[in-house]
Amino acid sequence: MNNTELDNKNPWEGLHEECGVFGMYDLSGGDVASTIYYGLFALQHRGQESCGIAVSETDGPKGKVTTHKDMGLVNEVFTGKTLEQMKGDIGVGHVRYSTAGASTRENAQPLVLNYVKGTLGLAHNGNLINARELRHDLEYTGAIFQTTIDSEVIAYHIARERLESKSAEEAVVRACRKIKGAYSLVVMSPRKLIGARDPFGFKPLCIGKRDNAYIITSETCALETIGAEFVRDVLPGEVVAITPDGQISSDCSLCLPQEKEARCIFEYIYFARPDSHIDGVSVYASRIKAGRFLAMDSPVDADLVVGVPESGNAAALGYALESGIPYGTAFVKNSYVGRTFIKPKQSSRESSVRVKLNVLREAVNGKRVIMIDDSIVRGTTSDRIVKMLRDAGATEVHVRISSPPFLWPCYFGTDIPEREQLIAYNRTIDDICKVIGADSLGYLEIRRLEELSEGLPICKGCFTGKYPLEPPKEDIRGDFER
Amino acid sequence: MNNTELDNKNPWEGLHEECGVFGMYDLSGGDVASTIYYGLFALQHRGQESCGIAVSETDGPKGKVTTHKDMGLVNEVFTGKTLEQMKGDIGVGHVRYSTAGASTRENAQPLVLNYVKGTLGLAHNGNLINARELRHDLEYTGAIFQTTIDSEVIAYHIARERLESKSAEEAVVRACRKIKGAYSLVVMSPRKLIGARDPFGFKPLCIGKRDNAYIITSETCALETIGAEFVRDVLPGEVVAITPDGQISSDCSLCLPQEKEARCIFEYIYFARPDSHIDGVSVYASRIKAGRFLAMDSPVDADLVVGVPESGNAAALGYALESGIPYGTAFVKNSYVGRTFIKPKQSSRESSVRVKLNVLREAVNGKRVIMIDDSIVRGTTSDRIVKMLRDAGATEVHVRISSPPFLWPCYFGTDIPEREQLIAYNRTIDDICKVIGADSLGYLEIRRLEELSEGLPICKGCFTGKYPLEPPKEDIRGDFER
Amino acid sequence: MNNTELDNKNPWEGLHEECGVFGMYDLSGGDVASTIYYGLFALQHRGQESCGIAVSETDGPKGKVTTHKDMGLVNEVFTGKTLEQMKGDIGVGHVRYSTAGASTRENAQPLVLNYVKGTLGLAHNGNLINARELRHDLEYTGAIFQTTIDSEVIAYHIARERLESKSAEEAVVRACRKIKGAYSLVVMSPRKLIGARDPFGFKPLCIGKRDNAYIITSETCALETIGAEFVRDVLPGEVVAITPDGQISSDCSLCLPQEKEARCIFEYIYFARPDSHIDGVSVYASRIKAGRFLAMDSPVDADLVVGVPESGNAAALGYALESGIPYGTAFVKNSYVGRTFIKPKQSSRESSVRVKLNVLREAVNGKRVIMIDDSIVRGTTSDRIVKMLRDAGATEVHVRISSPPFLWPCYFGTDIPEREQLIAYNRTIDDICKVIGADSLGYLEIRRLEELSEGLPICKGCFTGKYPLEPPKEDIRGDFER
Amino acid sequence: MNNTELDNKNPWEGLHEECGVFGMYDLSGGDVASTIYYGLFALQHRGQESCGIAVSETDGPKGKVTTHKDMGLVNEVFTGKTLEQMKGDIGVGHVRYSTAGASTRENAQPLVLNYVKGTLGLAHNGNLINARELRHDLEYTGAIFQTTIDSEVIAYHIARERLESKSAEEAVVRACRKIKGAYSLVVMSPRKLIGARDPFGFKPLCIGKRDNAYIITSETCALETIGAEFVRDVLPGEVVAITPDGQISSDCSLCLPQEKEARCIFEYIYFARPDSHIDGVSVYASRIKAGRFLAMDSPVDADLVVGVPESGNAAALGYALESGIPYGTAFVKNSYVGRTFIKPKQSSRESSVRVKLNVLREAVNGKRVIMIDDSIVRGTTSDRIVKMLRDAGATEVHVRISSPPFLWPCYFGTDIPEREQLIAYNRTIDDICKVIGADSLGYLEIRRLEELSEGLPICKGCFTGKYPLEPPKEDIRGDFER
Repeated sequence: MNNTELDNKNPWEGLHEECGVFGMYDLSGGDVASTIYYGLFALQHRGQESCGIAVSETDGPKGKVTTHKDMGLVNEVFTGKTLEQMKGDIGVGHVRYSTAGASTRENAQPLVLNYVKGTLGLAHNGNLINARELRHDLEYTGAIFQTTIDSEVIAYHIARERLESKSAEEAVVRACRKIKGAYSLVVMSPRKLIGARDPFGFKPLCIGKRDNAYIITSETCALETIGAEFVRDVLPGEVVAITPDGQISSDCSLCLPQEKEARCIFEYIYFARPDSHIDGVSVYASRIKAGRFLAMDSPVDADLVVGVPESGNAAALGYALESGIPYGTAFVKNSYVGRTFIKPKQSSRESSVRVKLNVLREAVNGKRVIMIDDSIVRGTTSDRIVKMLRDAGATEVHVRISSPPFLWPCYFGTDIPEREQLIAYNRTIDDICKVIGADSLGYLEIRRLEELSEGLPICKGCFTGKYPLEPPKEDIRGDFER
Repeated sequence: MNNTELDNKNPWEGLHEECGVFGMYDLSGGDVASTIYYGLFALQHRGQESCGIAVSETDGPKGKVTTHKDMGLVNEVFTGKTLEQMKGDIGVGHVRYSTAGASTRENAQPLVLNYVKGTLGLAHNGNLINARELRHDLEYTGAIFQTTIDSEVIAYHIARERLESKSAEEAVVRACRKIKGAYSLVVMSPRKLIGARDPFGFKPLCIGKRDNAYIITSETCALETIGAEFVRDVLPGEVVAITPDGQISSDCSLCLPQEKEARCIFEYIYFARPDSHIDGVSVYASRIKAGRFLAMDSPVDADLVVGVPESGNAAALGYALESGIPYGTAFVKNSYVGRTFIKPKQSSRESSVRVKLNVLREAVNGKRVIMIDDSIVRGTTSDRIVKMLRDAGATEVHVRISSPPFLWPCYFGTDIPEREQLIAYNRTIDDICKVIGADSLGYLEIRRLEELSEGLPICKGCFTGKYPLEPPKEDIRGDFER
Repeated sequence: MNNTELDNKNPWEGLHEECGVFGMYDLSGGDVASTIYYGLFALQHRGQESCGIAVSETDGPKGKVTTHKDMGLVNEVFTGKTLEQMKGDIGVGHVRYSTAGASTRENAQPLVLNYVKGTLGLAHNGNLINARELRHDLEYTGAIFQTTIDSEVIAYHIARERLESKSAEEAVVRACRKIKGAYSLVVMSPRKLIGARDPFGFKPLCIGKRDNAYIITSETCALETIGAEFVRDVLPGEVVAITPDGQISSDCSLCLPQEKEARCIFEYIYFARPDSHIDGVSVYASRIKAGRFLAMDSPVDADLVVGVPESGNAAALGYALESGIPYGTAFVKNSYVGRTFIKPKQSSRESSVRVKLNVLREAVNGKRVIMIDDSIVRGTTSDRIVKMLRDAGATEVHVRISSPPFLWPCYFGTDIPEREQLIAYNRTIDDICKVIGADSLGYLEIRRLEELSEGLPICKGCFTGKYPLEPPKEDIRGDFER
Repeated sequence: MNNTELDNKNPWEGLHEECGVFGMYDLSGGDVASTIYYGLFALQHRGQESCGIAVSETDGPKGKVTTHKDMGLVNEVFTGKTLEQMKGDIGVGHVRYSTAGASTRENAQPLVLNYVKGTLGLAHNGNLINARELRHDLEYTGAIFQTTIDSEVIAYHIARERLESKSAEEAVVRACRKIKGAYSLVVMSPRKLIGARDPFGFKPLCIGKRDNAYIITSETCALETIGAEFVRDVLPGEVVAITPDGQISSDCSLCLPQEKEARCIFEYIYFARPDSHIDGVSVYASRIKAGRFLAMDSPVDADLVVGVPESGNAAALGYALESGIPYGTAFVKNSYVGRTFIKPKQSSRESSVRVKLNVLREAVNGKRVIMIDDSIVRGTTSDRIVKMLRDAGATEVHVRISSPPFLWPCYFGTDIPEREQLIAYNRTIDDICKVIGADSLGYLEIRRLEELSEGLPICKGCFTGKYPLEPPKEDIRGDFER
């Protein structure tokens, strides 16, 4: 560790989602652990640091939960034997990339806890902005915290509200009324599977069904992977419960206060898998559209449109379709460079970028190339990729970015570096173009964003600094590790 | 796992201690993790299932604690690199064999938690008898539990009492007034190291000093191992605090209610390391004395006195000294048969006992042998060992046990099986003698027990069924896993 | 292991290459291990079962070699610490997928051995057809074999010929004259790095240079990854030696007997990375061309051309370019489904194919789709993928394969199943089309193959049953495990 | 690794044996792997660096051998699952501590190899003195070596002699006629289990039987552990074969040239387990006798005789019996300080000795103590232990050593340090006594050695420098790693 640069999170620089959730309840009593395992595989792109599954038997002793979680990818943490030993017809799973809370085994989810009514399992995607205050308040009434994740604050509130609630879902609703920020939650109570989505709808959450089993999960791609059918999205501000009688109950009396919706646009642009639909909108179609808008708004004459793999490919296709310039492949990505890639100390010559990405000289030599990427954060990788294209013979390199420039922090779950490190901070687009060495540079225009989501209201905070709810005074990221 | 019998706890049947604790505070600011590691090595006999260390910097950010704990022995859980990364001048360590709370990673100690005044680290040896009630009460005020160990109940009480206490040690005292049972605690607060021992003094706890550093630990052998000097025992019912000014504060106003002391006699007979002193009494001397009493009270004519290794050896020496019959070695113990010894399915012929223990035919052939052991629990191993001695040519085998017969459960931390499984249950000594195939059998007489502890009051519950405090109505062992 | 299907080699069915080699000699004396590590990363697609590196110091004690090899991917087998401890300015590395020789740690390469002149390290890509006879002959002169790989036979011959040779390279040449079949070898002697390629040129081998260091490796992509420049290919039948004076010696007197060249066409179609050039021909360009030929020879009216990722994408692009039908992306591949993906027993519903691949409904719904793949082996995966496209709304699915139908075994290193398992065996193209459920099916025509390699002579044995050299009477694959 | 002192071999300094062997052939066809596993447990004291098992089915395909070997203890290297997968009614096992050949996985035994007649498994205890010459000769006839252990040289000779031999055992005999030095071999051929012991009988080897299965192993304790009966010792210079008809064949025509026997006396004094018999002599009885001789030849007035655990205890008992001075226990050994004990860098205060050994103050305080150890090598540990006794209150410490002073290297398998590092080198006994801080010091007299072995001829080379066969000119230890 001390001799190598553990370069695991950041294949070449980029944004990070923090979590994916997957809950399942098989009303026929079948074991759900292995299906959750497949579901987490399909959500692995949402978090690669740690993962876990907790399952329980609804007709077993109340509160007996089997949990397995650890640092690592789904296929590193789970073995066939582990999964077989996880008996239960109800369960929740989680994949995590940490934004709030340190990267430690203690912080892996699902969080499992005993409280007055038995045992709860809780998986959370999102970031709260009042977690610090809530935590202080809880501590002043004698609470203790064993992790540094927001989810523990939520769990406490559910446990406390449960004392005065008629049902677990009521307790979840009451708890959600106290927390502020982005959250898509799946909660396993002894006899129910509950899903909750914050009133802004920052993060996706949807319901699926396979035979007699129900699923609540972050993305529809997880439903397809396990062969389940999509039932519907959980609405912003909605709390739903799958009960033993097979109802998807969603009592209006239990709804959260209505807010102006504000979906995270980066789910469409980058985070979600292209085969997912979020609130009825195809992620793939959004990306194609973003490419088309770039072709309309930042046209340039060239011979070839290429995407930076994987996330730039769909927008590149859109650009090609709109502009009529041929789509091509310019890069070979080494898919074996995984989470645990180490950069040995011995070596100084080799660059991480080149190990992960190589240019197809044959494809770009002598050509004017339009290169599409989903975002530029610090700009260091863009710089190197542009240079690689030129070294391979590209006569011009025009960079188009399928999102507007980042200028502001995100408080709701996206891991954006300090403002000062953002390439767009205090720079004009021309400046940025020079820094990355491109012949021209174009960003997606802010006015186009809502078209990507087909008119659904979105959060543009990271581009405009205007947030759907008052951000905290201080930087809350990495909080609780103080 | 499913194909092998994981026979790790029980080299050949016997009793189990549940925990050892080791806290250290270096007032000169040196790192304590590696010394705690050595200390835990010296306490490894007290628990082999899991272990852990938590350290903190008293002049660092309040509440920053580095923790490492896992299933396994000290030398399996800690590496040189792990220890180096654990920076801190104050810390607590723990080794565990589970009696209450399942054997899972979640239940490993020390327990580390954030509360209103920062971060606490807590290591606990003993067993509470009112943990279930306390836990229920806490849950009804909105507490959540993430482990199934008693220590979490204690932690909650400390956290809640802290709100109305002037100091961390006052909070510990207030918490201890609520819990009932056996506990020797070491608590690390951001600026203090606190030790607490229950009013009965069931479990040992002592204070040591090395240069400018203080230690609070289960046994004096851990002090000798790290080259520290013994300062004094923590008294039954005492709460002591090591403060940054180097005082061992023990405010009388903060004492626990006085009770009739009731040390666990098995610490002297079996649990503690022979080189330890508990409350001023040498464990080794106790065992020698037990052997002498056996020789006085259960004399027999023979050629050789031998101990069942390791724990029977000292009593055997005492018997030899008192009787004049020569002491000898009859067994070779295979010390490589460790925690993870597996018994392959393939094989049916081999016995676990013989893998672990072999008889020195040369030593016993043609001899009348007195075999000393510390206890008989189920009797199955005794049976086989007696047979092994006879097979090796012993003409007579007289068994002497350096404790009285077990007849009752222990509620305070010793893992005794169901009454029905105890060989002494519903059997006369003659019956037992026949079952194990010995020529004669003698137990230590109950009246001798207090002589072993040099008159210090002891608990005889497991022999007499009379406990120093009212036992719970139901079996509380393995509680919380309901 | 017994409860799960370890599905690691075969993401969904397909062909397997057996090995990649990478040798390096830094004449300036720098350590080469970490650069070899990067090189192996770039060759990982050629073998994922085991890998290894052996290094030596040319000015150190003769024959001191440091080796590290094991089952697993490059990033699983090597850590920063391992690499740092590997001191040496000359070395060879290897990645392996086993065709001859079982998948065991013993069979991992490089093979390192002591012989009369010091120590040899040997990395081999290819398959011998007379290994069994040579081995028998060697055994009858007292040889012993500790692995089941061909390379050990080669090593023996080098060792024996060395006794009568003036130089290590002469010994390699003499040994190569005895072995028959496919081989690209890199041999590290105490003071030289030697490369040898069989007279047919079955497998690629090329030379690169970076500053004062030389590289001999399987593919040019490995040169680009480490920032080395391409010097030239090793010619079929050539043995080259990098000597301490920096010469690339290739003495004509040491050449192998000339044969009609017969490159493995599957290197161009599937095995090699598209950014590599083999004997001057771009792999990427070959695949584009294969797609164009399919469009010319098997045209069909449709709305969209898509490739089965990753290997079908380039041919799909070629098809689109030639036909004018738009290129698109139809699949999302889950790149986290790695070597160690397990299929839990618990679950019967989930299909491995769907975990690894999902269809972009948005892209194909309502469209007539041309789906390009590089080959069909058993046909089971093609069947499922065609069905997935239809389920996603494709109105027609036309399958085009960028190679001719497999009908015959390969004896030179490609792992083709038993003839009876090949879908093309005893079936017309129409039959196959029905089996996989496509609307139409077209294969690349055999006459096009030589155009892919720009006229370079190739081996068509697996399509025609006519091999460049007499195949062995019996099936030799998996030999030596008798 | 670089930050810690991996102190695994040497609990506190001492001598090391290099190997233990265990072969088994079950004529009833039962699987032998798990019994070999138990046998290796019983031999673990003979080597803790690596271990392995190879098994084969005598009625299976000729030469199919399943092998598992790795660095580590028996319980670290083998799991239940590994053993289950090892099918075979004939097998050999090995535990190793390296003297010749580096500590690497490649050098772990058994050595398994294919040769003209199928597959051989070979396990070897001992050290050859002409391995270097033999190896050179073999290399000059084209042999290659993949390990640095002597056993590979033996294997080659067996393979070569097999060509001209009528049977495998004849080949073993012919090979043994060429090798010189110490060897106890167990060889598994496809249908026979063969044992060979060098003409000097340096190392033990014995035959056992359980039901219809035969065992050839290093020590009788391994027979007792698995419940087998002792049949007889393999004689010095004898080669025995267990054949499928259940004969223990030992053809006189196949005997090795007769030599003056020269058993390693350290097997009796230290290496072997006390419950073993070697050539009819009880190891335990030898040690008791050594203690008695010390009492006769180096008497001293004292209050207590104690042994340094574990190996000094039997001699201490002998001293006590002879002298009439009471035997006692002075030390507590921490048996959890195992092979992988690390000494963290952080800590400078703690001593390794004290972690492993503590003094029972109660036992020695105020007493004149005679402390018996089996040997002094460098003297550094003796020094510290004597001091620990004094610190615990011993008024006098008299050291008695149950072997003569080491002065010369061993070429036959015992790992003795450089002469210059031996405390006895160039020092009188008085000097040594001062160095270790004892009040008096006595060694076993050389004339007593043959009495320990009951008159059996022994090797005294390490005491006298006179060896039973001409030692090599150069230091051969660690050879082949040149």
